[in-house]
Amino acid sequence: MPKVSSAHRAKRRRQILDGARKAFSRHGYEGATVPRLEKAIGLSRGAIFSYFPSKWDLFYALAEEDQARAGEIWLEEGFGGVLRHIAKERPEWIGVYFELTGMLRTRPELREQFLKRSPEVNARLVERVRAMQRTAELRDDLDAEQLGRFMGIVLDGIVVAVAAGAPVDIDPVIRLVSAAIAPQ
Amino acid sequence: MPKVSSAHRAKRRRQILDGARKAFSRHGYEGATVPRLEKAIGLSRGAIFSYFPSKWDLFYALAEEDQARAGEIWLEEGFGGVLRHIAKERPEWIGVYFELTGMLRTRPELREQFLKRSPEVNARLVERVRAMQRTAELRDDLDAEQLGRFMGIVLDGIVVAVAAGAPVDIDPVIRLVSAAIAPQ
Repeated sequence: MPKVSSAHRAKRRRQILDGARKAFSRHGYEGATVPRLEKAIGLSRGAIFSYFPSKWDLFYALAEEDQARAGEIWLEEGFGGVLRHIAKERPEWIGVYFELTGMLRTRPELREQFLKRSPEVNARLVERVRAMQRTAELRDDLDAEQLGRFMGIVLDGIVVAVAAGAPVDIDPVIRLVSAAIAPQ
Repeated sequence: MPKVSSAHRAKRRRQILDGARKAFSRHGYEGATVPRLEKAIGLSRGAIFSYFPSKWDLFYALAEEDQARAGEIWLEEGFGGVLRHIAKERPEWIGVYFELTGMLRTRPELREQFLKRSPEVNARLVERVRAMQRTAELRDDLDAEQLGRFMGIVLDGIVVAVAAGAPVDIDPVIRLVSAAIAPQ
């Protein structure tokens, strides 16, 4: 009965990802040892690593989920919605990303993988930006990728503030970004 | 001869800060143990800690220097100059900042100190922004602090890219920020 087996696998995968997110948030990436991952997930290392071959793969799957979720919010509510969503993220979880900047810098193959995560939702975002350039809702003297990268830079800046526990006043940021990307 | 003594102290202080910057860049904040700091600086722990009471004070003094330098460039060359300066920073050093986001989040007294570093150059920056609002070079429907915080968020976003070793195309970012803060 492959249908039951597939539902079972999906449930297990969900259980592993939810537990891993908790373990990373509580102990950081380095601090999330295999025994701690086992405890937070409630499964043995054998079971966990049959779904995700390494700790990096576990983290990467969570980062892909974050990216896909942010992309969906972007498509539904616009860039302001994403900023508000990020500002409400748990700092403990967001801090895990910063633990990995050094590893991403020194391991180009992981950086390439990481920067290209969730390509489908990203392709839809670029398409949306292009459509809004055609209808003169966004400036078209810069290309869609440049506008996208700028919004990504602003998001990362907000993420830094959230991770450091600094308060962020989102509304002026939304007004300023809107002016930046509006037709000039 | 207090003059000689003062010059000697300034030289020693410089030696300590330069060595500490190297040790932090090479080993990270946690990894920069006292023996490694001694080796990189070329002085004993007694000498080092007579100038800076703790490792945090050493890092803080370096972060103050960075902030003051960026502020000076900002005043002389404008925001674009700061972005170009940051994009050329050594990723190894910039990565040290990210190691500290968790500590800043969980220790409000350090966060307060850190966010208010180099107050003199910051006050001059806010004054400059206000003057440019009065002469209609910058928008005045948001206050100077809000414009300043936005530019800080963009800087932090660039810093994330530099720390992760991702390439940054600065010119479109400068054009977009200029449009954001221009009179609307």
